[in-house]
Amino acid sequence: MTRAALIEQIKKKQTYLCVGLDTDIEKIPQHLLSAKDPQFEFNKQIIDATIDHCVSYKINTAFYESQGVKGWEALHKTVSYIPKTHFTIADAKRGDIGNTSTQYAKAFFEQMDFDAVTVAPYMGEDSVKPFLEYEGKWTILLGLTSNPGSKDFEMLRTKENYLFEEVLKKSSSWGNPGNLMYVIGATKHEMVGNIRKSFPEHFYLVPGVGAQGGSLEEISKSGMNKDCGLLVNASRAVIFASPGKDFALAAKVSASQYHNEMRQFLA
Amino acid sequence: MTRAALIEQIKKKQTYLCVGLDTDIEKIPQHLLSAKDPQFEFNKQIIDATIDHCVSYKINTAFYESQGVKGWEALHKTVSYIPKTHFTIADAKRGDIGNTSTQYAKAFFEQMDFDAVTVAPYMGEDSVKPFLEYEGKWTILLGLTSNPGSKDFEMLRTKENYLFEEVLKKSSSWGNPGNLMYVIGATKHEMVGNIRKSFPEHFYLVPGVGAQGGSLEEISKSGMNKDCGLLVNASRAVIFASPGKDFALAAKVSASQYHNEMRQFLA
Repeated sequence: MTRAALIEQIKKKQTYLCVGLDTDIEKIPQHLLSAKDPQFEFNKQIIDATIDHCVSYKINTAFYESQGVKGWEALHKTVSYIPKTHFTIADAKRGDIGNTSTQYAKAFFEQMDFDAVTVAPYMGEDSVKPFLEYEGKWTILLGLTSNPGSKDFEMLRTKENYLFEEVLKKSSSWGNPGNLMYVIGATKHEMVGNIRKSFPEHFYLVPGVGAQGGSLEEISKSGMNKDCGLLVNASRAVIFASPGKDFALAAKVSASQYHNEMRQFLA
Repeated sequence: MTRAALIEQIKKKQTYLCVGLDTDIEKIPQHLLSAKDPQFEFNKQIIDATIDHCVSYKINTAFYESQGVKGWEALHKTVSYIPKTHFTIADAKRGDIGNTSTQYAKAFFEQMDFDAVTVAPYMGEDSVKPFLEYEGKWTILLGLTSNPGSKDFEMLRTKENYLFEEVLKKSSSWGNPGNLMYVIGATKHEMVGNIRKSFPEHFYLVPGVGAQGGSLEEISKSGMNKDCGLLVNASRAVIFASPGKDFALAAKVSASQYHNEMRQFLA
């Protein structure tokens, strides 16, 4: 999906919600466990229920890998099921030497048809470039993440900057706002105003709203640009809104609440 | 595998070679492509041929993910095929917020029975801890990698150190030399002497010998400790030593050459 198409979807639907399919097999409703492929069955119903309230789905690969081959299969089926109107993200945090990143890019952009993949920056340029080389695809690089451990290295001071700022600065020359986004955690909203000043054009994928405690209002105020420029993810707060048979309806209600808030922030 | 058992294997066999199963489907011999599972068939023959010359196998997950569900299946079958005498590494470079790293740990330590998994440090402590919590399993954290991009962030100066030194220092308190190793690239041998002084006990997993140009002799001289303390990986130089029907024999010859050199360096 192109940048223009993504912005058009956001404007048309008045939402910048990304629903995170962190489909933990231990949390999905009991009655689905007898299905042939419980993870996929759960995802299908969640997608059907939330599709009008979001512009993107983010699939967290860990929750599928932990289920072995059948989990990997559910991952493939899920991304195929999502309609092309929605921006699909493989939240995979990959990154390795060039020839290996090329294989990861093949996995997510060719074997599966994701629009984007999240990438870890530690190993530098040649670990990121193979993802950026795919025409029409996106790399979402970790910048400042939402978790407690972000203080350990991301917030280390270099001569003039925090490490995460060095990552943003250097990597911004490897791609452009049409193929490169950044992960910026909602729990770090007090720093987002400055980040937005330095990187006005890029989209930010924002985790950390909901279960991790970040505020949608604060991140929207400090992070939005003229094109919106945000995809705010909610995973557990949407998909596990109810543990019972009404899980899909509960997910719809939760997603529609985000949608309503987002409509206001976009106004 | 415990630290003591690994050291015993190294002493007994007089080798610290790790064979990297970067099984690129486009590079495996033509005649194997008609097999039911070409990647697994190739790996099986490589393992049989090299087993006496190495103490470890490192499976690079990217080359399996890029083949879709059947690749993920070949990955599972390969790790099951490796005998328990050999230390198995999932070279996966994973790492995410705590609840997600827990799922990756499940994937590699429960769904598959790897001894170790490589982990990227960028997201800090809570992204690494879930791997370290597995009794009898190992976390191999990226320190100073072998690729050109290592200069971009790993070699950034903080107040007193390079970033990679901050990573080693901080993370060394999260685990111990019995459950934590570091990736230290052979192409950086001029820095390895100092690293060894600061971290005398830890094992280092050393990529970058062979196709990437690092020297086995130099890394062995500067990196070895009293227990050896090294697992030196060779991937392409061993497994793709010949593109023809003699690939397994050629791999054996290549691995035995490393073995012979290592025997000398251990003496």
